[in-house]
Parts: sequence; C-alpha cells; structure tokens
Amino acid sequence: MLNFIFQNATKIIFGRGTENQVGKEVKDYSNKILFVSYGKGVIEKLGLYDRAITSLKTSGIEVIELRGVVANGKLDLVYEGIRLCKENNINFILAVGGGSVIDTAKSIAVGVPYQGDVWDFFAEKAIPEKVLPIGTILTIPASGSETSNAAVITRVDGSLKRAFKSELIRPKFSILNPELLYTLPPYQIACGVTDIMAHDMERYFSSVTHVDLTDRLCEAVFKSVMLHAPLVLKNPKNYDAWAEIMWGGTIAHNDLLTTGRVQDLASHDIEHELSGIYDVAHGAGLAVIFPAWMKYVYKNDIERFAQFAVRMMNVDYFFKDPELTVLEGIKKLEDFYVSIGMPIRLKGLGITDDRFKEMALKATYNGTRTLGNFVKLGHKDIYNIFKLAV
Amino acid sequence: MLNFIFQNATKIIFGRGTENQVGKEVKDYSNKILFVSYGKGVIEKLGLYDRAITSLKTSGIEVIELRGVVANGKLDLVYEGIRLCKENNINFILAVGGGSVIDTAKSIAVGVPYQGDVWDFFAEKAIPEKVLPIGTILTIPASGSETSNAAVITRVDGSLKRAFKSELIRPKFSILNPELLYTLPPYQIACGVTDIMAHDMERYFSSVTHVDLTDRLCEAVFKSVMLHAPLVLKNPKNYDAWAEIMWGGTIAHNDLLTTGRVQDLASHDIEHELSGIYDVAHGAGLAVIFPAWMKYVYKNDIERFAQFAVRMMNVDYFFKDPELTVLEGIKKLEDFYVSIGMPIRLKGLGITDDRFKEMALKATYNGTRTLGNFVKLGHKDIYNIFKLAV
Repeated sequence: MLNFIFQNATKIIFGRGTENQVGKEVKDYSNKILFVSYGKGVIEKLGLYDRAITSLKTSGIEVIELRGVVANGKLDLVYEGIRLCKENNINFILAVGGGSVIDTAKSIAVGVPYQGDVWDFFAEKAIPEKVLPIGTILTIPASGSETSNAAVITRVDGSLKRAFKSELIRPKFSILNPELLYTLPPYQIACGVTDIMAHDMERYFSSVTHVDLTDRLCEAVFKSVMLHAPLVLKNPKNYDAWAEIMWGGTIAHNDLLTTGRVQDLASHDIEHELSGIYDVAHGAGLAVIFPAWMKYVYKNDIERFAQFAVRMMNVDYFFKDPELTVLEGIKKLEDFYVSIGMPIRLKGLGITDDRFKEMALKATYNGTRTLGNFVKLGHKDIYNIFKLAV
Repeated sequence: MLNFIFQNATKIIFGRGTENQVGKEVKDYSNKILFVSYGKGVIEKLGLYDRAITSLKTSGIEVIELRGVVANGKLDLVYEGIRLCKENNINFILAVGGGSVIDTAKSIAVGVPYQGDVWDFFAEKAIPEKVLPIGTILTIPASGSETSNAAVITRVDGSLKRAFKSELIRPKFSILNPELLYTLPPYQIACGVTDIMAHDMERYFSSVTHVDLTDRLCEAVFKSVMLHAPLVLKNPKNYDAWAEIMWGGTIAHNDLLTTGRVQDLASHDIEHELSGIYDVAHGAGLAVIFPAWMKYVYKNDIERFAQFAVRMMNVDYFFKDPELTVLEGIKKLEDFYVSIGMPIRLKGLGITDDRFKEMALKATYNGTRTLGNFVKLGHKDIYNIFKLAV
C-alpha cells in the first residue's frame, strides 16, 4: 500500500425528497446563485425545477439561470456562465443535472476568480488557486462528479475533450435522490452504469501490491452496481435498486477506492478522444474501449485479471490455466455490456478506422506522453487498442 | 435504504513517516497547542515523541503537554486538560495515541468553550455548540475515534462509562502510520482487531432492507481485517498487513458503513458496563459480549445471520437448515477470537455473575431505556445476555 492523503468533505444528502432541502443548504453560502442545468424541459418534466426553485425562493435566494448544457459539456457555455457570475456578483453555483452540468459548474467556479482564459486549467497552463463554492442536485448517476475533484469539458473548435483536477472544486454538498432517476431512458441508464463500472475498474487495475482492503471495496461497489443495473432497466421506478446504483456511483469516484494505490485511467483518456471527436456517449465509448484495453494489457498481470474474473465476474478459477480464466472474465464483461444494451465494438458506435492515428496522437499530446499506469501506453499502443475495438 | 446525510471531512494522512508532517498540519490552525498522550514512556519508546515535537517546533508551534491518559480514559484528566487550555489560551488539541487519548482530547475540546461541567455532554444535559479543533496521530487501530463523531469517557467515582456524539468533534486531520504499531503487545493487537470487527458488525446487523452495497462494504472491511490480524500477530513488523488493518479500522467507524441503514450498538453499550466497572479492555469485553448477543437475537432475522455466516465467516450455506448455518457462523467467530487470544466467556475476564442485575439496570438507565436497534433490549434481555456469556 502506498502512502496517501484522503479527504472528501462533500456533504451527501441522500434520499427521497431531499431536493426540497436545497434552499437551506445553499443559504449557508450565498443569497444569490447561478443555477446551471440542461435546456428547458429536462428537469421541468421531473417537477424538479419547480421544487428546487421553490426551495431556493423560500430561503430568500436570488436565482440567475444558465440553461442549455448538453452531453459532453461545451466550453462556450462555461464562458457564458463566467460572464453571468461576474456581471451579477454571484458567488455560488448550483448544478442541477448530471456530469456535464456539474463539470460546467465546476469550470465556471474556477473561471470566475481567474484573470485569464479558463481553458488554461484544461491546457495545464494554470492551477486553480481560488474557486467559487458549488453544490449539486444529481439527476444522472455516472460521472461521480458530485463529489469528485475533476471536471471534463469539450472545446468544440478543436474537438478537444480535456479534464483538470483540483481539490478546491469538490462540491460543498450534493443532493442525491434516486426518485429523480425514474425517467432516464434505457440507453442513458446503461451508459451511466458502464461509466460507474469503469471508474471502479480504473482503480482495480493497479500494479500496486498489498491493496487487499481497497480491492474488496472495489469489488463491493462493482458487484452491487452490476447486480442492480438490470433491475432498473426492467423497472425504472425501482427505488431500492436505484439507491444502490446512485450511492455506488458516488463511492466509485470519491477517491476512497484509490487510497493507497495508483489508478489507471487510460481507458477514460482514450474514450475522451472518441467522445471529443464523434460526440458519442461517454459510457458507450467506455463499453467499447475497456474490453479492448483489457485484451491488450492483461498479460502484464495475469493474477490481477484472474482475480477480476473470479471475484468480480464470478468466473470459476481454472487453476491449470489462469489465462483462460482471464479471457472468460473479459467475455463475461462484454456479455454484460451487451445485455444492458451497450455496444462493445467501434462499429456499434458508427466509428470506422479512418481517424485512429489522429486520435492516438491527440491523446498522447502528439506522442510526447503516455496514458495509464497499470501499463504505460504510447500512441502506437493506443492505435492497437482502437484496432482491437473494431 | 433509508435517507441519510453523510459527511466526514477528516483529512487522512496515511503511511510511512507521516508523523513528521504534524507541524505543517497543525500550523493551519494554531501556534499553541495542548499535546495529549499517555504517561511518559509509551510514545517515547517509539521515537514518536521526539519526531512529533521536532516537527511541531520546526513549524514554530508552542506545545503544552497533558500526559497520563490510561485505557478507558478518565474524566479527571479531561478536567485537567480544560484547565490547562483555559489558563494558556490554547485553541488546538493534538491527540497522540489510541482511542482513550483521542476521546480525552475530544472531551477537552468541547469542555473548553463550555461554561458548565463537561460531563453534561455525557449525561445528555447539554449539546456541544462550539469546540476547539483537534488533530490526531494514531498509535492503536481500534476505536475509529480518529475520524468519528463520538467520544467515550469513564467517570471513576460512579464507575460510569458514557459516550456523546457530535459532528463538531471529528478531527480536522488524522495521521496514520502503520510503522507506529510495530511494538503493540499481542493482547492489545487482538483487542483492537476485535473492536474494529465489532464496529463493522454493529453496522452489519441492521434490520433495514435493500442495503446491498453497504452490506458488501461491511464484508470487505471485515474480511480484510480478519485476514490480516493473524499476520500481524505472527510478525508485528508486517507493514503491509498493518496498513490493511489500520485503514480498515478507520473505515469501519467513519460512518460510510452506516449510510442508509441503522446501526445496532447494543453490544458496545453492554460492554461499556463491563469496562466501566471492571476496567477490562474494551476489545476483550466485546469478544465475550458479541457472541452472546448473537445467540440471544439471531432468531429475529435468520437470513441476515446466515448471510453473515456465509459471506463473512465463509460457512457453507445449509439450504435445508439455515439455523445450522447461523450457529456455525457464530462458532467460527468464537474460534477466531480464541485463535487471536481473546476470551469468549466472562470467566475469561475474571467476571462472575454477582453484578449482572446492577449492570443491566445501569446500561438501561434503571430500566427506563432499551439498547440496540436490530432488537431493542430491555434490562432483562441484557441480564440474559450476560448469563449466556458466563
């Protein structure tokens, strides 16, 4: 186990009806907020918009709205949000939505007190020193952004999807009500579940040894999310199943599962190239990339992949043939993705091989960097992984 | 799953040599601190005293010492600490030790800003509104007090051992270095492990349904701690095994495992009567009380106890006879306690039955309250549990 620092102070307010507390929670920070969400309709349909606004107004909070966030949140709207905050002297941001909304809010939060271009943080030209506090009401369990220290934004002009990290951007509070998930379409449910499982596996596939406890914690989250995903696909109003997935989605990405180990994240980084260029759903991209990554790297640590197969995918261990165990585990993961409606090959995303080289180079900053930690991947490795995903 | 609020902001600084950062961490809060620890010798022998003091002095921090904390921390020393803080205008408390040291520090921290008698908090006559911040360097993994919201203190005059809870008393930071555990004597190791396992089981035995994720998280911590306990007993300098136990001990009691469910805590409360009157080690008392409690209550939820037996104690499930599964699970737990050198009957603690009635009444505030949630126990139930533990 490696030395580590762990601190995650986000206050989780979990359960039925908790969105009605948002005014009270915001009140501790500000009387005037930027309310960030999707285009009109999405949260209105849930009744969430009315309930949140009522709660905020009841607490005497002035609300200025920034609507129109889309999947793979765009930089332009971040600029718009920064402008609104500056013009109106706003010092708290409330994100009401999923990962793209929360990441838009986080990006505005670091952009407001910063003199330069907020893209500097994504381009690694600057490190946040001051941010506005943010809070969230989560409507899609997937990104883990509701307690994480990361934000991902897409710059449309160059099809660049980039992330930055800072301990300062963890939300002050996040409101998680599984009832708000009842209207998610099946494809989005499956994408979210795939993202959560990927966050978990990015931690699990670590080359650090003596990490038994965090291995088991990863297994706990993974198995519970896998178990309940088919239940919510069958009945999207299954509160109890949603509760397990929603809380699992947070724990998968709140850094508890990374304590004492190094996460990989190569599959996430490779997928960002797909969704940056083709605007595919992040979860669907992961369902394609993760198995290809596994096939490419598993020989570097057969024992770990066998443990994955046995303990996470319930494969019998073939004592005389560990590699067969591994391959069976990967196959069972693919089978699971298919069972929840995810593609497992690039053609399922409508992507052909004409831009593999370009994406492999872009992911590695023109071949100057490697991705991942379990195995460090250069641009040729990434190209090969794309090839395996065809 | 029940609605819940979860927030645990304690900063964990984990790993080799981390005690050398204590000055830097304290500096964020104060230039003058009360340093609380055991009587001279314990932390000196580890070299910890010198390293901590050097780090503090290097950061320019003035240190006033309160030494002499013993197991089952006593109220008199809390009074002494409050006096020292008030006389010296101290506004930060550093606890260097295990649960009794940390709980002494927490009690001083609530006592200093309070006008009345600090025992009021334990006697439920007052609720903390203001506290001094505290930090810890942990030297015994057991109590979980390094991130918890609870403190337990013994008032010697009436042999009363009482706890209070407040979100305000969670430490600001806790330094966890497994190397500091190398000199713990075997009995103390076993007591600590038993306490951690009990914290975990107090959460596991809940009557709330649809708690699959937290069940699995409980199982993860429990199994990892059980697996590594014999390893540190065999070789107390096994860093990797200690790391799993130490981090597991924190997670077992940081309230993550309680999210969405109700904890029991009856065994802890019953044990407090034993260690309050007889001054036995808390862990040893738990090894005696927990199996007796299980035998007394398991019929209320055979499925849950069978799950415990199968998933935590690796018992084969007897599909035609779940009760046999349960009894086998309890027996295996007792076997484990014996294997690490714990008593499993009161006579192993030198306790006879002459004060059972007195303790059962005291635990229930003279029969006016019940203990526990899984099953609510009156004073007669507690008497019967003592009888089962003979």
